[in-house]
Amino acid sequence: MTGRAEFASWLEGTNDLTSRFVGSAGIADLVNVAGGLPDASLFPSDRLAEIAAEAIRTRPGVALGYAPTGGLPELREAIAARYRARGAAVDASNVLITASGTQALDLVGKVLIEPGRRIACDFPTYAGAMDAFRPREPRYQHVDLSRHDRLADALGKADLAYMIPNFSNPTGKLVDLPTRRALVEAVHATDTWLIEDDPYGALYYDGPALPGLLELSSRGTEAPYRGPVIHMGSLSKQLVPGLRVGWVIADPELIGKLSSAKQATDLCSNALSQLLTLAALEEGMIEEMHPKAIALYRERRTALAEAMERHISPWFDWEVPVGGMFFWARAKDRSLDVDRLVDAGMEHGVLVGPGNVFDPLGLSGPALRLNFTLNDAEKLDRGMARLAEALVAIGAGTGQQRAPAAAAV
Amino acid sequence: MTGRAEFASWLEGTNDLTSRFVGSAGIADLVNVAGGLPDASLFPSDRLAEIAAEAIRTRPGVALGYAPTGGLPELREAIAARYRARGAAVDASNVLITASGTQALDLVGKVLIEPGRRIACDFPTYAGAMDAFRPREPRYQHVDLSRHDRLADALGKADLAYMIPNFSNPTGKLVDLPTRRALVEAVHATDTWLIEDDPYGALYYDGPALPGLLELSSRGTEAPYRGPVIHMGSLSKQLVPGLRVGWVIADPELIGKLSSAKQATDLCSNALSQLLTLAALEEGMIEEMHPKAIALYRERRTALAEAMERHISPWFDWEVPVGGMFFWARAKDRSLDVDRLVDAGMEHGVLVGPGNVFDPLGLSGPALRLNFTLNDAEKLDRGMARLAEALVAIGAGTGQQRAPAAAAV
Repeated sequence: MTGRAEFASWLEGTNDLTSRFVGSAGIADLVNVAGGLPDASLFPSDRLAEIAAEAIRTRPGVALGYAPTGGLPELREAIAARYRARGAAVDASNVLITASGTQALDLVGKVLIEPGRRIACDFPTYAGAMDAFRPREPRYQHVDLSRHDRLADALGKADLAYMIPNFSNPTGKLVDLPTRRALVEAVHATDTWLIEDDPYGALYYDGPALPGLLELSSRGTEAPYRGPVIHMGSLSKQLVPGLRVGWVIADPELIGKLSSAKQATDLCSNALSQLLTLAALEEGMIEEMHPKAIALYRERRTALAEAMERHISPWFDWEVPVGGMFFWARAKDRSLDVDRLVDAGMEHGVLVGPGNVFDPLGLSGPALRLNFTLNDAEKLDRGMARLAEALVAIGAGTGQQRAPAAAAV
Repeated sequence: MTGRAEFASWLEGTNDLTSRFVGSAGIADLVNVAGGLPDASLFPSDRLAEIAAEAIRTRPGVALGYAPTGGLPELREAIAARYRARGAAVDASNVLITASGTQALDLVGKVLIEPGRRIACDFPTYAGAMDAFRPREPRYQHVDLSRHDRLADALGKADLAYMIPNFSNPTGKLVDLPTRRALVEAVHATDTWLIEDDPYGALYYDGPALPGLLELSSRGTEAPYRGPVIHMGSLSKQLVPGLRVGWVIADPELIGKLSSAKQATDLCSNALSQLLTLAALEEGMIEEMHPKAIALYRERRTALAEAMERHISPWFDWEVPVGGMFFWARAKDRSLDVDRLVDAGMEHGVLVGPGNVFDPLGLSGPALRLNFTLNDAEKLDRGMARLAEALVAIGAGTGQQRAPAAAAV
């Protein structure tokens, strides 16, 4: 036999959107409203520089050596303590430190997905999660979260559920408290593993945070938590994204399996990043940065809403999100070619996120994901003006009526 | 349907040895000769502390932000330049930066292994590679590297080959130049993908480095390299292990697929670690550290050989390795229960690596992997004395003759 083995078949289904976004960061004068990037001016870089230097100088064996696969014990405990303070019954045995939220998804995929297993999601949903699961070849089914009476039935048909209750990516949608309670009741009834992916939970702009699924699921129990919720968190959107530190909070038995999978995936995470994360938690850097981030992003949310109104309202409908990083703009003309629009947008100097990558079942109509956290008001206005030019250039229709309700899922 | 989905079946075959080793680092007075750890006293920590602080302070958007999925372009080019200096015809398009050598294995597994595909190895071989490949469910076959005339036939039956030509883990064996040439000829004839895993390539103690498979395969060609060798490198054993920076050098088309897989695995690597790695390369930190590391590890290799001779020679045979980090000690008594010996060793205060995890086909007899880089001469002596006590305690036999040649594979 001669000839190279072919690339694995799952690669045929993959999209390279995120790396196109990350890679396009160098294009001059491009307005990027496609990614989910924080504003680097918020980074507490001077203090992190001091902490990094001190950690390397005073603890070189830890900062520059191999770390335990599951994460530094002090950091696991610090994360557990933060969740306990919110009312979750968890301890360090519930916590695995990962190298990013994406790695958390990869590891859960490795441990809980076999080919053909069914994942229940509220579509459209995060493309990066589907990318991470793809090598494990799952199938997907949609869950209508508004039908509380059918949730147990829907979850019972799935092997795993995946949800982003706080400002879903891409839709910006917040799952309300009655639905959270109904979801937790349904997963307790069916004992279906349920991922609560929560990168945006700190980004509430209009009111206090709702209790998370992990808190609701663990209420009235003792640590360690042994329920079916698999919570995922990270500091990428609350501190800085580059440390590549995330975590999974789950049943200790599952944490053990995820740790075995992590050992086989990257042996251990960067210890220096974990020490920086620990210091940031202990010094209250996140709490210090939080009001600044909220004020800045709230202002930019308004700026993008106004720019959208000024420039693209003939073509799109949307709701203003109450948190997170994204608007979900639904095309009035349901025949709009979103990929063509994305290409035309790049030609006119604006990068927007095509909705179709988040909607593999095609349940939603044509839509765009638009980010408001990275750019200031002026750039957001310029971006929407350019998007309008691109819409005109491709002869996009404005539709005759509002998109049907199904498109707003 | 109720009840939690079961853990994926590949987990049943996994071993938790590496995490047991990493985790046992905290046990007081334990002599750890099981792991493959460098000596932290060699780390250039003061200079790395300065570089880290400067990078975060002066380039916060880069150091603390998302990095390109494939790695920082300057680092990809710097790695390519190092390999060009050795005679490999490669450029930046041949290079993917990974978060550790283990991640390189995980990504190649995702891209090139489908269930049932065959991997050819020279057993015993690195357990961590088999761990990384396990979720993709490959099968294994042994290649006898001494039979040059049969190499093309053996590789032709495989979808992928995995080799550690420089001081194999666990055996410490160096693949000689004629065998390297024969291997490259065979992979060129069959066009079989061949991984050259090279974490120990800088650790030659007794002479100059032999040309690597990548260099031999690319000779007489122009960059970018498009041949079947997939080279993997890292600075874990040459600088510090904690940066979690490794790389793959391969055909640009394969690099593109690996980059897609990386995007779905952790989105991107830590940028700060990449900046530290780049600075270390540019400042010649590796070249500066190299003679110190070689002198220290050469001395410790001798110390372990002497301690083995003093304490465990009634039970074991070995060759002194000419590089790398390990001795491969073969039991004279082929009925020795290695797992029992490992447990007894821990009770007597020494942690040794059981050979069986490196030898899933059971081709080798009972053996131990013993590391000489982490501990000084006194600790190595204490470790071997304790191992002798453990051997006595379990009533290990000394055998009547030397182990047959097959055990030395």
